[in-house]
Amino acid sequence: MDVRAYLAERTPLVNAALEAALPPASEAPQSLHAAMRHLLFPGGKRLRPAFAMAAAEALGRRPEVALPAAVAVELIHTYSLIHDDLPCMDDDTERRGRPTVHVQFGESAAVLAGDALQTLAFEMLAGSTADVAPERAALAIRDLARAAGSRGLVGGQVDDLAFALGEDAKAKIESIHARKSAALIAAAIVTGARLAGADDARLEQLQRFGIDVGVAFQIADDLLDEDEDDACSFPRVAGSEVARNRAEQLLKAALDELRDLGEAAEPLRSLARFAVRRRE
Amino acid sequence: MDVRAYLAERTPLVNAALEAALPPASEAPQSLHAAMRHLLFPGGKRLRPAFAMAAAEALGRRPEVALPAAVAVELIHTYSLIHDDLPCMDDDTERRGRPTVHVQFGESAAVLAGDALQTLAFEMLAGSTADVAPERAALAIRDLARAAGSRGLVGGQVDDLAFALGEDAKAKIESIHARKSAALIAAAIVTGARLAGADDARLEQLQRFGIDVGVAFQIADDLLDEDEDDACSFPRVAGSEVARNRAEQLLKAALDELRDLGEAAEPLRSLARFAVRRRE
Repeated sequence: MDVRAYLAERTPLVNAALEAALPPASEAPQSLHAAMRHLLFPGGKRLRPAFAMAAAEALGRRPEVALPAAVAVELIHTYSLIHDDLPCMDDDTERRGRPTVHVQFGESAAVLAGDALQTLAFEMLAGSTADVAPERAALAIRDLARAAGSRGLVGGQVDDLAFALGEDAKAKIESIHARKSAALIAAAIVTGARLAGADDARLEQLQRFGIDVGVAFQIADDLLDEDEDDACSFPRVAGSEVARNRAEQLLKAALDELRDLGEAAEPLRSLARFAVRRRE
Repeated sequence: MDVRAYLAERTPLVNAALEAALPPASEAPQSLHAAMRHLLFPGGKRLRPAFAMAAAEALGRRPEVALPAAVAVELIHTYSLIHDDLPCMDDDTERRGRPTVHVQFGESAAVLAGDALQTLAFEMLAGSTADVAPERAALAIRDLARAAGSRGLVGGQVDDLAFALGEDAKAKIESIHARKSAALIAAAIVTGARLAGADDARLEQLQRFGIDVGVAFQIADDLLDEDEDDACSFPRVAGSEVARNRAEQLLKAALDELRDLGEAAEPLRSLARFAVRRRE
């Protein structure tokens, strides 16, 4: 399967839904709405939204049913990047070749734009009930909140900021990645599947798939990233070859999880391979 | 009605629900969970939770049905205070007689604790479906998200930070207060009523009541507050007497909204009077 063609086909759906979700940059307070849009458009590869839609397709549903999940997860991802870049966190001045939000709009605008993007994520999922049974929307909100909260994304970022080399460094790094990166990738897949009508056994299977893919994805990201400031990096601690093998091992475990799913899960499998093996 | 007795009776319910919602401070990452709890316990007057429960009572329901709304709104309120206190915003070092979260735990911990408290708010509302029809939970999440987002709380904070005296200062201040303070008080009432089964006409009535009470509450707060740094203050711009009259006028309009509600709405009316006329 041609993953780039798949992404090229799905991304316009996501971008249109994101565009519809965000207040226009001309709406007051303009500085806030412009800051909310800065990192979101043109955005990155939209991998998480693609995972959400591929999960719906794996269950034989149309990708559009997962769009509220796709949009919500991308909004949470974007808010977390804006806050991670803040001077009091990673203090990054550039992302995706452009100034970070706090460099462009100021620090308070970056905090508040992130805050409002998180809020909007939940508003979008809550608004999915026109096409989706309301209890599924409520459960998808719970799934996403658990992945994004202090036991997921935020807790992972706290441990990442405090990370220091020492005993069990590899296990600590995987625990951080499981929460900081993988939890949200898994949430994209699980909330997408939830909106598509998956039962509990299927959701647990997809959660395991998502965590394995997500940790492998983060190892792959660290293999590609030349940022020498980041100590919380599997390749830095274990070496590139061990890291590459670990990523492949996790990818294999993830794909094994999906063996009872047929042809319809091919986009999900291909996205997993792409996320872990990409070279850029 | 004795409002202090009412609050003394309701607050333990709220505190127990908040305690159950928050991970223990002993759970890793401990610094994060301690930071999330710092401003929340013992907390303030728990006025917003009381409004949520009084709204359910006004509709003839038990106050407990509104507890998920009460908890969620208090979590949003707390997150917004933590972020408002940050050095890049109001740069406050003390709140409720204690060091602010960033003073006690550091700036990154304060940003992240606020982020996780916001997430938890939506998780709590999403979890209310055991006692509540799921579509009501989803709609309550949408109500709260709209109040908290860029068109409500966050947008009000942006305009507050940028506020400068000039033409139409009073109207600008009321617009800021309607979003920064009143939207969340109205959301407490509306989400409480939503979980209690209110229909759309009732919700619209309670929304108008909540906004009027909320703006009057903020004027009362500014009358009590001696912080001379804050230019966005109705009494500072209009004088104390004009401000007191405006608060009473808004309170009267709010109480008039509730005239078709009987004795069951007495807690809601009394809380409104208390919020606007309190002397501390």
